[in-house]
Amino acid sequence: MSDSPSILLLNGPNLNLLGTREPDIYGANTLHDVEHLVTETAAAADYGVNALQSNHEGVLIDAIHEARQNSRGIIINPGAYTHTSLAIADALAAVNLPVIEVHISNVHRREAVRHHSFVSPVASSIIIGAGINGYRLATLQLIDLLSEASPRT
Amino acid sequence: MSDSPSILLLNGPNLNLLGTREPDIYGANTLHDVEHLVTETAAAADYGVNALQSNHEGVLIDAIHEARQNSRGIIINPGAYTHTSLAIADALAAVNLPVIEVHISNVHRREAVRHHSFVSPVASSIIIGAGINGYRLATLQLIDLLSEASPRT
Amino acid sequence: MSDSPSILLLNGPNLNLLGTREPDIYGANTLHDVEHLVTETAAAADYGVNALQSNHEGVLIDAIHEARQNSRGIIINPGAYTHTSLAIADALAAVNLPVIEVHISNVHRREAVRHHSFVSPVASSIIIGAGINGYRLATLQLIDLLSEASPRT
Amino acid sequence: MSDSPSILLLNGPNLNLLGTREPDIYGANTLHDVEHLVTETAAAADYGVNALQSNHEGVLIDAIHEARQNSRGIIINPGAYTHTSLAIADALAAVNLPVIEVHISNVHRREAVRHHSFVSPVASSIIIGAGINGYRLATLQLIDLLSEASPRT
Amino acid sequence: MSDSPSILLLNGPNLNLLGTREPDIYGANTLHDVEHLVTETAAAADYGVNALQSNHEGVLIDAIHEARQNSRGIIINPGAYTHTSLAIADALAAVNLPVIEVHISNVHRREAVRHHSFVSPVASSIIIGAGINGYRLATLQLIDLLSEASPRT
Amino acid sequence: MSDSPSILLLNGPNLNLLGTREPDIYGANTLHDVEHLVTETAAAADYGVNALQSNHEGVLIDAIHEARQNSRGIIINPGAYTHTSLAIADALAAVNLPVIEVHISNVHRREAVRHHSFVSPVASSIIIGAGINGYRLATLQLIDLLSEASPRT
Amino acid sequence: MSDSPSILLLNGPNLNLLGTREPDIYGANTLHDVEHLVTETAAAADYGVNALQSNHEGVLIDAIHEARQNSRGIIINPGAYTHTSLAIADALAAVNLPVIEVHISNVHRREAVRHHSFVSPVASSIIIGAGINGYRLATLQLIDLLSEASPRT
Amino acid sequence: MSDSPSILLLNGPNLNLLGTREPDIYGANTLHDVEHLVTETAAAADYGVNALQSNHEGVLIDAIHEARQNSRGIIINPGAYTHTSLAIADALAAVNLPVIEVHISNVHRREAVRHHSFVSPVASSIIIGAGINGYRLATLQLIDLLSEASPRT
Amino acid sequence: MSDSPSILLLNGPNLNLLGTREPDIYGANTLHDVEHLVTETAAAADYGVNALQSNHEGVLIDAIHEARQNSRGIIINPGAYTHTSLAIADALAAVNLPVIEVHISNVHRREAVRHHSFVSPVASSIIIGAGINGYRLATLQLIDLLSEASPRT
Amino acid sequence: MSDSPSILLLNGPNLNLLGTREPDIYGANTLHDVEHLVTETAAAADYGVNALQSNHEGVLIDAIHEARQNSRGIIINPGAYTHTSLAIADALAAVNLPVIEVHISNVHRREAVRHHSFVSPVASSIIIGAGINGYRLATLQLIDLLSEASPRT
Amino acid sequence: MSDSPSILLLNGPNLNLLGTREPDIYGANTLHDVEHLVTETAAAADYGVNALQSNHEGVLIDAIHEARQNSRGIIINPGAYTHTSLAIADALAAVNLPVIEVHISNVHRREAVRHHSFVSPVASSIIIGAGINGYRLATLQLIDLLSEASPRT
Amino acid sequence: MSDSPSILLLNGPNLNLLGTREPDIYGANTLHDVEHLVTETAAAADYGVNALQSNHEGVLIDAIHEARQNSRGIIINPGAYTHTSLAIADALAAVNLPVIEVHISNVHRREAVRHHSFVSPVASSIIIGAGINGYRLATLQLIDLLSEASPRT
Repeated sequence: MSDSPSILLLNGPNLNLLGTREPDIYGANTLHDVEHLVTETAAAADYGVNALQSNHEGVLIDAIHEARQNSRGIIINPGAYTHTSLAIADALAAVNLPVIEVHISNVHRREAVRHHSFVSPVASSIIIGAGINGYRLATLQLIDLLSEASPRT
Repeated sequence: MSDSPSILLLNGPNLNLLGTREPDIYGANTLHDVEHLVTETAAAADYGVNALQSNHEGVLIDAIHEARQNSRGIIINPGAYTHTSLAIADALAAVNLPVIEVHISNVHRREAVRHHSFVSPVASSIIIGAGINGYRLATLQLIDLLSEASPRT
Repeated sequence: MSDSPSILLLNGPNLNLLGTREPDIYGANTLHDVEHLVTETAAAADYGVNALQSNHEGVLIDAIHEARQNSRGIIINPGAYTHTSLAIADALAAVNLPVIEVHISNVHRREAVRHHSFVSPVASSIIIGAGINGYRLATLQLIDLLSEASPRT
Repeated sequence: MSDSPSILLLNGPNLNLLGTREPDIYGANTLHDVEHLVTETAAAADYGVNALQSNHEGVLIDAIHEARQNSRGIIINPGAYTHTSLAIADALAAVNLPVIEVHISNVHRREAVRHHSFVSPVASSIIIGAGINGYRLATLQLIDLLSEASPRT
Repeated sequence: MSDSPSILLLNGPNLNLLGTREPDIYGANTLHDVEHLVTETAAAADYGVNALQSNHEGVLIDAIHEARQNSRGIIINPGAYTHTSLAIADALAAVNLPVIEVHISNVHRREAVRHHSFVSPVASSIIIGAGINGYRLATLQLIDLLSEASPRT
Repeated sequence: MSDSPSILLLNGPNLNLLGTREPDIYGANTLHDVEHLVTETAAAADYGVNALQSNHEGVLIDAIHEARQNSRGIIINPGAYTHTSLAIADALAAVNLPVIEVHISNVHRREAVRHHSFVSPVASSIIIGAGINGYRLATLQLIDLLSEASPRT
Repeated sequence: MSDSPSILLLNGPNLNLLGTREPDIYGANTLHDVEHLVTETAAAADYGVNALQSNHEGVLIDAIHEARQNSRGIIINPGAYTHTSLAIADALAAVNLPVIEVHISNVHRREAVRHHSFVSPVASSIIIGAGINGYRLATLQLIDLLSEASPRT
Repeated sequence: MSDSPSILLLNGPNLNLLGTREPDIYGANTLHDVEHLVTETAAAADYGVNALQSNHEGVLIDAIHEARQNSRGIIINPGAYTHTSLAIADALAAVNLPVIEVHISNVHRREAVRHHSFVSPVASSIIIGAGINGYRLATLQLIDLLSEASPRT
Repeated sequence: MSDSPSILLLNGPNLNLLGTREPDIYGANTLHDVEHLVTETAAAADYGVNALQSNHEGVLIDAIHEARQNSRGIIINPGAYTHTSLAIADALAAVNLPVIEVHISNVHRREAVRHHSFVSPVASSIIIGAGINGYRLATLQLIDLLSEASPRT
Repeated sequence: MSDSPSILLLNGPNLNLLGTREPDIYGANTLHDVEHLVTETAAAADYGVNALQSNHEGVLIDAIHEARQNSRGIIINPGAYTHTSLAIADALAAVNLPVIEVHISNVHRREAVRHHSFVSPVASSIIIGAGINGYRLATLQLIDLLSEASPRT
Repeated sequence: MSDSPSILLLNGPNLNLLGTREPDIYGANTLHDVEHLVTETAAAADYGVNALQSNHEGVLIDAIHEARQNSRGIIINPGAYTHTSLAIADALAAVNLPVIEVHISNVHRREAVRHHSFVSPVASSIIIGAGINGYRLATLQLIDLLSEASPRT
Repeated sequence: MSDSPSILLLNGPNLNLLGTREPDIYGANTLHDVEHLVTETAAAADYGVNALQSNHEGVLIDAIHEARQNSRGIIINPGAYTHTSLAIADALAAVNLPVIEVHISNVHRREAVRHHSFVSPVASSIIIGAGINGYRLATLQLIDLLSEASPRT
């Protein structure tokens, strides 16, 4: 990858279908749009982006482990694994990087099972229901945390 | 107020103590810093800001009602009322404006009672654990929603 | 106030918006219509009406306390405080007047949090889902109780 | 039956004992008094009344089904079946007539099992704890709904 | 019936199958054996017995109501209605006669739903898991209660 | 009845309204259509069908008991009694015949109370959400079980 | 002790106060009356009785263990340990003797904590709310079990 | 694949062991038998079958996504993932094809964790406890849905 | 105020009715008696007292905030807000003064909702059910804490 | 013992370790200090003190029973038995003496199991988190109750 | 005792019956075998063993307290007190020695009440379901902890 | 592999990070140390070891299936899958080999979600909180089971 410091952007199960699936919940933008938006926002602050989407819990965990070598922070939308994967949450806790959790839709308007997140307690910040703009906000917040110039509270 | 369209910024109980209270949880910035940050961010997009902090549930509800006359959207950190006030949630639902919910600290790392929000199901977007930077992100998201140019999903 | 005995009509948070807010749930009548309907119904039995709406829990409690001096009974729609205010229920229990609880919509068709009422155990009678006509029925029932001619069971 | 439109008045298990059973809870009036009160109130608006009491869940369901042929609305005090019969609730939902649910005593002051009603979500209006006067209020509300002149909210 | 005072013996759903159904749970004795055992035991104390078995909840309730006219006390094995019929419990509470609840098998060794009885709070005494001998013990206890010579505690 | 072996087809409360009630949930076919479909399917394998619908829990239990004399198996849609009748489940367990439970609609898409079935643990097989075609599948499965040629697992 | 076979009668904590404590719940008879009643009833069938009351859980467990040597069965009123002692239940299960559980008052009319018994699943039979007469019934039932002439179901 | 329209048959974790594992629960038929039975049944209606078994949640999700390109409907036995995978349920919801859920054994007779299915709310129909014959019924039902000639309710 | 150090005495909703309301629960002493008792007890140790009663949650929070300027410790009986106000608990935590929580009646003998206190985890000491004498004990304990001569454990 | 009336001071399991065990929770004072403090405080009002500590539930119950003969009231810190011993609570209820419950630490800041007390509903007053000073307050409150000069509410 | 350092081996209620009670759960070895196995294993590392079995909760607590004087660590199988005794857990926490918890059978295959242990949070290590070999493993682990040469994690 | 019989050692998600991740919880030893310790311990009893670590649930299931061909028993630390994977538990149950479950840290001192294990009911023995020494104990216990010379209880 490039010389600039890097951010890992992880999208979990079914997010490859973005833009084609249930547009009333998830909107018309595609995963490609999401990755482009994060890359563009990060580039403005001289960060590169490594993007990965997978439907496999294990692949996501492996990628989180590798982030220790090559990333300064993680933006993750764990999809349905948000609510069922303690293992992803453990991986995020283990690598000790700042984590921003993103959900495109407002999960608190949906079924009760989606109100609990295993990831939230190990995330630094959480952005919910801001559409794909939420990824832009997450990138801004991660950069803010990394610059340490942020009035962090 | 000015001719530019306006945003209502509401802060709930105990947030007047910001910067002086439990700095390990809430940081060193004051309520004045928060209001300045939102005003500045909104001004860049030609929005004015009406800011109110109150420890009184009824005062917050009255302000939400008045927002119908003079505001385009609401940014609210309901403090502890997040978890106990169905009446504030009802008021937000009634006025039919976009609502961004903000929490300075990551409430999911705190006691169980703080994991449930009456406000989240009536909010458009929710920003948690981003420190006072969360107010800046909330302002950006609200403006994005209001401009309708946002790739809303 | 007048010489005729008096009834206290209390409406809780957000009911000032009646007729303008969520008309599919609450209908098109206004708070003024409600107060007129109760006044008219009470007048037919020679009762006066003191009407108060407030979004402030404390204001409602103060009014309940004052009812000991100047009212024979209370008709209350506590709005969202129905489900969260033990203090209003305690106030109603303390003043020892007949209490009729009214809800405009059928709360049992709404979210689970609205199925429990702190007020019901301290009310004499409860009228739910009869629209604003429920206030008329509540007035008839209160007068019936006060006349003691009612075949009370 | 007569030419005037008709209301079905249903009373569930043990209500045949009214006036003789636990008078501190249910009062001194009998089932005959209840049926007379409803008939009288309905007659004033030119409605007839078909009254039935049964201790048999199936008999009550059969009567609800038949109401499609000969009734404009239903007043029901389902007694203990309120809390255990999903089948009666289903029958009421199926026949698609306005339903007014009545309870003589304030069920919310009694054991927890009596706080939940299967019928409430399928009723239009609910009258609780108004003694047998509650049947009169129920009749007024049903007529109001049927006349459609009601300021229904 | 005879001149001697009478006891009502009620058996609920599926107990007509006694002796033919699941003998490992309920044993080899038939309903006829049960009725004979109670009749014999009661006769020794000069009580007659009216015995009824029904699979219909309403029929059991009707019989309980009639007991006010012709019985001094009730022995009831409500079968599965033990766990689902609040209406039978209400009927027993209403008639104000001493009630002895009997279960042939030890319900506390079976599925959780069988651990709760609606009838127990309205029964005087409860005999569980004594096989059909439990009916004999119930008869002795009922006679003891009726004689008022019992050292009742 | 005929000489051919027989199947008992039981339909519970409100299923007599099939085709006329809530067609968005239950479709346009009538109970007569259901009984015809089962009879036709069974006839192809030389089984007769005894069909009964009742709104009375006790009538259904009586019919289950009689099945011991004249039926080889039971197809039952217990309607709302699925969720409230332990007595019907006990009856099915007692008669020791193969039982196929059918639900026309997908009960798991409806209210939580409909997700639990007292009957399922005593049924051999369960068919949910296949419309009235579910009765045909149930008949095929029952015949398969009875022929014992089925690769039963 | 004597040559006749023996029954162990165990009474748990606070039952030494019988007759002096809360007579509205437990009656006026004393522990001595209870022990006399059991001894007398057992003697009629040629059984001796070893009676022990203790407020110490460990003493009760030791006595249960010793019953293997010298008793044919156990009658136990575990008092409050009914609801808190898994260890007593384990001891009863371990010694493999018939156990009759007795409660003087109807525990199902008291606080919820008294509705669950650790002992019931390991008891053969349970007698509740029959006053001290319950001990007589328990003795009859134990003798019936031991004689094996009982029509045990 | 062939020109005929196709059905996707998915079997989840541990179903590769069918016929060799816990035969008292799952029977003696193998996965090959299952796939053959579905293929044969589908062929009779001119449908082809793509069959896949995997122990990997991600592989199952990927296959569901691909079904949009090449299948008309899905028959799925999600094995243990039924009870833990919200991600598979989301995938099934996203692809918008008719889904038939199959369980070989009667899961309602097993541990409580197996009584809840994430998949059921997104399935069209559910077949439980019909052994491997359940796959044949599922195929018939899927074809029935696809032909739209089904009297679907 | 005076030169002597000061204690804040806060009484919550409905405590203004003390002595006039439900005397069987709260006794015959008035709020004036309470304030006099605390003032007198504090004076003996050279502390002044600022006393405030309010039915308004917000007023109580404001007073707690102001205590940072002018009080050494807080004695609070939050009334019904004990059980519903997380915001008052947050305010008490924020001001970092010793807090003594007082309840006049024994809340553990009342309804379940009164068994949980939001305030207890942020209080130093808790005095329950000592009548108005509890205020005297609270004052002694607060002085003891402030003197730091207390054998604090 | 002496001629002066006497108070029973009971300390439960592990309180013999006071001062040596977990001093951050329980402080540095010993059980001897506690007993001395109570004795001294009681002596000032001419009461003697009988002090007992035991790790045995049965010993504590025996001591409570004996208090009927020789004590006017009981001060008890039941230690961990607070949360598990219904038998101690029954003993306290049975002896009908005023009971003051004391906990040295604030149990509401500790694990959830320590938030419930079996003893509280049978205690007159409860003192929590006041360190060993809590024993002095308990003694004052008990004397106050015994003198009946207390403004008891 | 001897000069070698010592381990306390505690066995709780009913474990004196080992080898004679429910051999399908607990096996054929006796308590003497267990004590011999631990003594032998400890001797190999030059540790002595003090063994105690008691059915009395208080005796076990006293023994734990005494271990401070004469033991380096504790191996405990608390039997049924595992699940009901917070007092034993408190004692273990107080004495501040390494604790190894042992259960002979796999408690997670038994009733739900046996899945929770009060002792586990205060134990260093837990050995479950290894039969009496579990005591040998516990001894090895305790010695390993005491030698501090263990690769402790 | 070698001729000696073999043990399968499985480590689940995130255990590849052992020694580098959260050393206060998991210690400083690496996965390599763990595998070496097990290999060495097994070799002393002439067993070989096949070791596998994976973050993929499906890979772990596949390995368990393969163990039927080449292993005599399984030692598994399922990491976070312990608490979320019913599929791994099913796989372990299916292959019918002795299973020893190991957890390095004392999971009962951690969050509630880690107190429940899907694997424990299908394991023979469970070793918790013994650090990496737990793997040695697990190996000893597995060998003991396999040798059948173990005094297995």
